[in-house]
Amino acid sequence: MDARQLIERKRDGGRLAPDEWTAFIRAYAAGQITDYQMSAFLMACFIRGLDRGETAALTDAMLGSGGRLELGHLGKARIDKHSTGGVGDKVSLILAPLVSCLGVAVPMMSGRGLGHTGGTLDKLEAIPGFRTRLSLAEARAELEAIGCALIGQTEEIAPADRKMYALRDATATVESIPLISASIMSKKLAEGLTGLVLDVKRGSGAFLPELDAELELAGTMVSLGADHGCPVVALLTAMDRPLGRACGNALETEEAIHALRGEGPPDLMDVTYALGAEMLLLAGAAADGADARRRLEGAIAGGQAARQFQRIIEAQGGNPAVVDDPALLPQARECELFAAPRRGFVARIEPRAIGYGVTTLGGGRTTVADVIDPTVGFVITAKPGDWVEAGEALATVFARDARGVAAGRACLAGAIVIADDAEPPLPLISHRVSQAGVERYASR
Amino acid sequence: MDARQLIERKRDGGRLAPDEWTAFIRAYAAGQITDYQMSAFLMACFIRGLDRGETAALTDAMLGSGGRLELGHLGKARIDKHSTGGVGDKVSLILAPLVSCLGVAVPMMSGRGLGHTGGTLDKLEAIPGFRTRLSLAEARAELEAIGCALIGQTEEIAPADRKMYALRDATATVESIPLISASIMSKKLAEGLTGLVLDVKRGSGAFLPELDAELELAGTMVSLGADHGCPVVALLTAMDRPLGRACGNALETEEAIHALRGEGPPDLMDVTYALGAEMLLLAGAAADGADARRRLEGAIAGGQAARQFQRIIEAQGGNPAVVDDPALLPQARECELFAAPRRGFVARIEPRAIGYGVTTLGGGRTTVADVIDPTVGFVITAKPGDWVEAGEALATVFARDARGVAAGRACLAGAIVIADDAEPPLPLISHRVSQAGVERYASR
Repeated sequence: MDARQLIERKRDGGRLAPDEWTAFIRAYAAGQITDYQMSAFLMACFIRGLDRGETAALTDAMLGSGGRLELGHLGKARIDKHSTGGVGDKVSLILAPLVSCLGVAVPMMSGRGLGHTGGTLDKLEAIPGFRTRLSLAEARAELEAIGCALIGQTEEIAPADRKMYALRDATATVESIPLISASIMSKKLAEGLTGLVLDVKRGSGAFLPELDAELELAGTMVSLGADHGCPVVALLTAMDRPLGRACGNALETEEAIHALRGEGPPDLMDVTYALGAEMLLLAGAAADGADARRRLEGAIAGGQAARQFQRIIEAQGGNPAVVDDPALLPQARECELFAAPRRGFVARIEPRAIGYGVTTLGGGRTTVADVIDPTVGFVITAKPGDWVEAGEALATVFARDARGVAAGRACLAGAIVIADDAEPPLPLISHRVSQAGVERYASR
Repeated sequence: MDARQLIERKRDGGRLAPDEWTAFIRAYAAGQITDYQMSAFLMACFIRGLDRGETAALTDAMLGSGGRLELGHLGKARIDKHSTGGVGDKVSLILAPLVSCLGVAVPMMSGRGLGHTGGTLDKLEAIPGFRTRLSLAEARAELEAIGCALIGQTEEIAPADRKMYALRDATATVESIPLISASIMSKKLAEGLTGLVLDVKRGSGAFLPELDAELELAGTMVSLGADHGCPVVALLTAMDRPLGRACGNALETEEAIHALRGEGPPDLMDVTYALGAEMLLLAGAAADGADARRRLEGAIAGGQAARQFQRIIEAQGGNPAVVDDPALLPQARECELFAAPRRGFVARIEPRAIGYGVTTLGGGRTTVADVIDPTVGFVITAKPGDWVEAGEALATVFARDARGVAAGRACLAGAIVIADDAEPPLPLISHRVSQAGVERYASR
């Protein structure tokens, strides 16, 4: 195989056959194609696009570059949820125990935070002792024992995708719908799923801010899933403001624990229940949406979800006592209230500004090598549309020191806009995309 | 400077300002931008294109990444000739001594062969002892002493261009007119020229086979030269067949020596005189085209050109006796005639097939690290349009061993097409491009 010929064909708008995708990705994983050849190829893919068949072939090629979680012997449905990434999005921490305690296996592979969005692995690691670097064999054992495992992308899973993702991040080739879809789906298929629920974020804080692009991503993922025998359902949810109240690793883990104990904020619970209901429906574990929601609420009210989270924490080396006493999570040295500078409506709470604010405080990464401080962040109690008086508390800053507090206050002063009028925010959940097509979402 | 932002802008079809080009190229030369970022950027440049201002800014940025030959003190015109690369093209070896013996300084920086095209440096190095790796100081001293220097791209000249060219070769981003133009011009401007003559090859063996693209390249180079105070004249010459008879390093050097002694084949001499006349005219060293041609022919007939080649060889460590006795050049172990398999017209002699044939025999490179054998190649006496009888000698194969002879015969059998009819080949010189525009070329 001559790499240059395939790069040239994609450069000129041509297409690669499935066996050419396989050969190209295999040669890259084997080091026969260099990083600089791959990055030129990825730029050509970004600009010229991939058709449906090519996207499926790329997915297969990346999937085939590594191992898989073989879970057929569990004898039950295996469903994961994946989010395109947002600020304050701790839904995975709630859903994994909640859905797995209802008899559905949840093999959940998550990522780390980068840029303005947080990452589930970082939030889990705020729990003292919690290990996310499990081998596939360890993850399989945990799934057999308790029906859930919360892991990072191991060296074994889709190694070609991992190498390519790092390149894309450095070469401005991330925001390509076929490349994103193939990257996500190659990892999800390696989990041995029988279904996948996708949370596609919308609005100014989302990865793809345009509705057209979000619907295209959702549709591409649904098609890719169908091509591979793994049904996918996507919900489009609002990311024009943070989800829930907490933004920052330990703070979000604490909020997730509160949610599992029935004390989560309404927007967070609505998104969690909507996604969880889709998971149960894909698993055949509920008769309809209303039945699914009843089961989910029941597992929280009855304490099964919180107990399942304790089991997961224990199985992965963490201290399960944090579920009963979240004060055992690492605590910021400094915290200070942030008050409204004037009266008016909360017009906007910019998630990107909040997300980058967490990074400024030391709780996020600008490069993959950064070490993060789990304690810092914000708890923002105000929501867009709220009427507030001058001096009313809107949020709390959690920081390492006085300088962090000042930086956090400056971030909030820019991110929270108070005005005489407020446009209505995006609907919390706006669309549902499945093989049946795109529908407006109606709460059930 | 954030490399990703500039890559992203070019990816989306935007333009970079001159200071952004400078910063990007400087950061790359300093190793702050990685090869994989540069190759993604180059692919975006390839697909999206560069406008005239960007091409000039890239040229300046690459020029500024290294040193220059300061030659103003020579007090005479400094003219170089550059070819876009062909098969059998040994014109530089003839022109450099020929034009420099007429009082015009010729600081000629050449390249090595890669792919199907040969390289002047490889041909020169077929002369025992000949050194092409001169420092800028050595080249300057030789130009002061004898008015000519034949060198490779030193570490000092446009180092950013050298790094980028190697990347482009590996990533299918070579055939971009703005990138080619900036690459050539940054090196030529570093030679301190007062004028440049460009030989743009046309036809199936050319780098850019389409006439539109060739005229665009010529026009871009003429504009770039004008923007930088270095007038450029381009001639479009035929590369639908090899130029002259010899193809292969020592064989071509021998043919160049014969040409300097007045025994060159007509097509080779016509192209040499046409390009040489443009060089003399740019230098103000001839009254008109006819006067220029007279001077060139006179310098060959009178032996000044051959003696100047001896001086150059001696100055660069080679054995000048090869000019009087070309048998001192390295000789192939095996040679064998190739006869016409049938009677008919020579319909085509495919230069790409011949060029790759030389590589197959061991006389060319498939990667820059390959070591070449200077002795191997072909001497092809037939020309397209000739009538030949079955069994008539068309060419000679020069090889290392019997296996090479067989491979060379197979190459010629594919490359030389004999048929009942022959289309007329391309005119040897078809267009002249200068600041006055494009004109059909008329022999003068």
